[in-house]
Amino acid sequence: MIISLDRKSNIGLQEQLFTQIREQILDGRLKGGAGLPSSRNLAQQLAISRNSVTFTYERLINEGYLIARPMVGTYVATTLPELAPAAPSDSPPKIADGPIREKLAPAAFRGRPHSILNNSRIPIDFWPQRTDPRAFPLKAWRRLVLHSLATAGHNLTEYGDPCGLAALRTAIADHVAGSRGIYIRPEQVVIVAGAQLALNLAVRVLVRPGDSIVVENPCNQGAAFLFESLNFRVHPIAVDQHGIDTSKLAAIDAQIIHVMPSHQYPMGGTLSLARRSELVEWAERNGAYIIEDDYDSEFHYAGAPLAAIKAMSPDNTIYLGTFSKSLGAGLRTGFAIFPDHLAEAASTAKALLDNGQVWLEQSVIAEFMLGGGFARHLRRTKTRYLTRRDRIVSALRAHFSGAEFSGTDAGTHLAWKLPSHFPSAHRIQAVARSRNIGVYTVQSGGGHEYGGSQYEDRWLLLGYASLTEEQIDAGVARLAELVRGAGGST
Amino acid sequence: MIISLDRKSNIGLQEQLFTQIREQILDGRLKGGAGLPSSRNLAQQLAISRNSVTFTYERLINEGYLIARPMVGTYVATTLPELAPAAPSDSPPKIADGPIREKLAPAAFRGRPHSILNNSRIPIDFWPQRTDPRAFPLKAWRRLVLHSLATAGHNLTEYGDPCGLAALRTAIADHVAGSRGIYIRPEQVVIVAGAQLALNLAVRVLVRPGDSIVVENPCNQGAAFLFESLNFRVHPIAVDQHGIDTSKLAAIDAQIIHVMPSHQYPMGGTLSLARRSELVEWAERNGAYIIEDDYDSEFHYAGAPLAAIKAMSPDNTIYLGTFSKSLGAGLRTGFAIFPDHLAEAASTAKALLDNGQVWLEQSVIAEFMLGGGFARHLRRTKTRYLTRRDRIVSALRAHFSGAEFSGTDAGTHLAWKLPSHFPSAHRIQAVARSRNIGVYTVQSGGGHEYGGSQYEDRWLLLGYASLTEEQIDAGVARLAELVRGAGGST
Repeated sequence: MIISLDRKSNIGLQEQLFTQIREQILDGRLKGGAGLPSSRNLAQQLAISRNSVTFTYERLINEGYLIARPMVGTYVATTLPELAPAAPSDSPPKIADGPIREKLAPAAFRGRPHSILNNSRIPIDFWPQRTDPRAFPLKAWRRLVLHSLATAGHNLTEYGDPCGLAALRTAIADHVAGSRGIYIRPEQVVIVAGAQLALNLAVRVLVRPGDSIVVENPCNQGAAFLFESLNFRVHPIAVDQHGIDTSKLAAIDAQIIHVMPSHQYPMGGTLSLARRSELVEWAERNGAYIIEDDYDSEFHYAGAPLAAIKAMSPDNTIYLGTFSKSLGAGLRTGFAIFPDHLAEAASTAKALLDNGQVWLEQSVIAEFMLGGGFARHLRRTKTRYLTRRDRIVSALRAHFSGAEFSGTDAGTHLAWKLPSHFPSAHRIQAVARSRNIGVYTVQSGGGHEYGGSQYEDRWLLLGYASLTEEQIDAGVARLAELVRGAGGST
Repeated sequence: MIISLDRKSNIGLQEQLFTQIREQILDGRLKGGAGLPSSRNLAQQLAISRNSVTFTYERLINEGYLIARPMVGTYVATTLPELAPAAPSDSPPKIADGPIREKLAPAAFRGRPHSILNNSRIPIDFWPQRTDPRAFPLKAWRRLVLHSLATAGHNLTEYGDPCGLAALRTAIADHVAGSRGIYIRPEQVVIVAGAQLALNLAVRVLVRPGDSIVVENPCNQGAAFLFESLNFRVHPIAVDQHGIDTSKLAAIDAQIIHVMPSHQYPMGGTLSLARRSELVEWAERNGAYIIEDDYDSEFHYAGAPLAAIKAMSPDNTIYLGTFSKSLGAGLRTGFAIFPDHLAEAASTAKALLDNGQVWLEQSVIAEFMLGGGFARHLRRTKTRYLTRRDRIVSALRAHFSGAEFSGTDAGTHLAWKLPSHFPSAHRIQAVARSRNIGVYTVQSGGGHEYGGSQYEDRWLLLGYASLTEEQIDAGVARLAELVRGAGGST
């Protein structure tokens, strides 16, 4: 391992050390399993403090590049998240960074793209991030679009409030009061182009250099890869069928936590009330902020949904919502709800991030909500998706005896635990793809597992919202044939 | 000065020191002109290294909070950029930061909003950021919207490429080849929600902690306040009627420069060919990147427009464009064009920033461009705005003998230099407002002047694109009356 620190650089020595080790791991100069020098030796060799080395190692461990073996040493991780297949197209993994032009610095940005786009048109595709295109309220939409255009006035040519159209902010404030128990002023709502931008806004408002953030493990790539690209210190905590294991929080000193309590992505767990209370108590005791991503809470099938974390701890919680699942991802409209005391900072941060969301979609969604169309659409769509949820669960149970699931209580996808005698999730995904069936491992479905592959190897994600009952039946039946053919008894 | 460092915090001591001094300056506990302890004394007192203090002082000096007087000492700056008036409503300056809740950290974000929103409905309003709502091609738009909705398929419910619709990226690549001499692959084009988001994307891709950026002085608040909120080291260089004074560049060692060469905001200058060459030579010699904001280059009235900087130095230049002026700001659609070697980093950074722009507007704009409607619309609109430009120039000349302007060759606004015997720009703005005429100082029109008030005191910004010729005549005539009434002979 060759490290060369530039003491005249504006970049801190620790940051340089971190970047150089990380790059050597990523480009293969440091191979999986290779041992690293002790922190004492490396510190002496580089003439820097031992703390700097220890801290850098810890950060690389947290991000999954290194593995610490207590009393033995520190090693390069053998399965780097970076080197696992990333995109549903099975394209080779890529680290975004073009060739370096003479004299020109390469991009300052380093990161990897998350899997949200699925261009493949597989005949029976259980892609977990897809809702039903036929459920879109097209007729009502056309009417509202024409009405908005006819009464647009200067709205098509004028800048609006960067935080969004007042009517839409009010409609959302009303909606979350009724559906999620969140009582706020419309000024606390910021309209954004989807939940990913909402997350960017939240961290711009909240996170300081060097801050730590707790994340669910596995979590969605959009969050994991964003935090990685911003060099946050990440503390992953395992999730199970009931969401994040909040008993692990007590040992962690962090200012921010990112959770998806309604229907965790990718594992689908719904956080229990006891865990919600534990989470809120931890946050309030530590003065920590909770980023609550509630991306598909509209579809909840088992009784009344639990109130949002935001309703339990309004001052500590930034709530992220989106119309991507409830209406359509092509509308690119979501929102963030900030605590009252952060509303002004959020509003300014938003204005400096972008000058607001497209007027027409905001106007149409507001009209759709205020006129009652949205509530009717949600009821209709929920019934439709519930039927499909029932169908996929019964089909999987019929073909795979003793099938175990996570995430069936809500949302538009479930996670299926493969019996131990089945081929790996990757193998099943590949065989199924060759027979025109799309099923997805955690990683290829847009999830990210920090260090290890417990979920990646043994679970598959199946979205059911966009498939008819006939397609679900046919898909599961063919899957059972394929698994038997690949050596798994069903 | 009371500094209290928390050695258990995850935030570095240097960062804590920086933040605490900065906050005490911003909230007035440390007053302009106050002397700071020597770095040796402060280091002893706080038991930290002298280097930490020196570095922190240097950073505060670079950001304009402190002033170093060689051999004398370090002082709080008397004119802080933060304390200048900000909004067109003449509201008091605000630092976005709510009250601190018990235990909860305040927002990490610090910044101030830029003036892009104008909610006042002044009868004759020369607001410089407004185009003509009546010029919007509403009839064609309605037809294209209906066509897109009728053929939407899964586009309303599916995630698209975060970098934008392929058809629109291709249409833009074709457009900038013909109009700006920029020859690129469509993959270098990233569709974003307007030029402000494009700028955020560009700096996320390019800027490293501690990097320096050269900016025009004055420049637009959207850029200035963004760079300030991200703690960049800023080097302002004065502009005149011909844009940024590139002869000042040689002395500056920076990796990035932000310029608006077609029609500088707010002063309106068009960068001369000689200066363009000097800028490009400097960038290529230093391996620096140029961020070229070309927000209103479609409206160029004096012969053929000069080729874009991007056309002269494709590897070094990130080109930002928007449909806000050419079509309408309510469409919230713009784009960034990256050099080929940064396209992949840009694409990943964009995906982690947001999951793409609204599908419908992208589809409609692409159809409008590919069908020739956009080119026809531009020709029509340019003729309309040229007539208004001629009208406002002749009206100002008729009422104010020897009137001097900047920025009349392009765009939708001009800058008017007040004769020295006139009341100040602020005074004229206030008197005019009271008589239902909107004219704008640099600051209230969304510009930002670093240190000093040369332009702020003596120039007014007048937008003319949204006013009829009759309104322009009436507005200028009433302005002349007001100025005479306020003590200026015309």
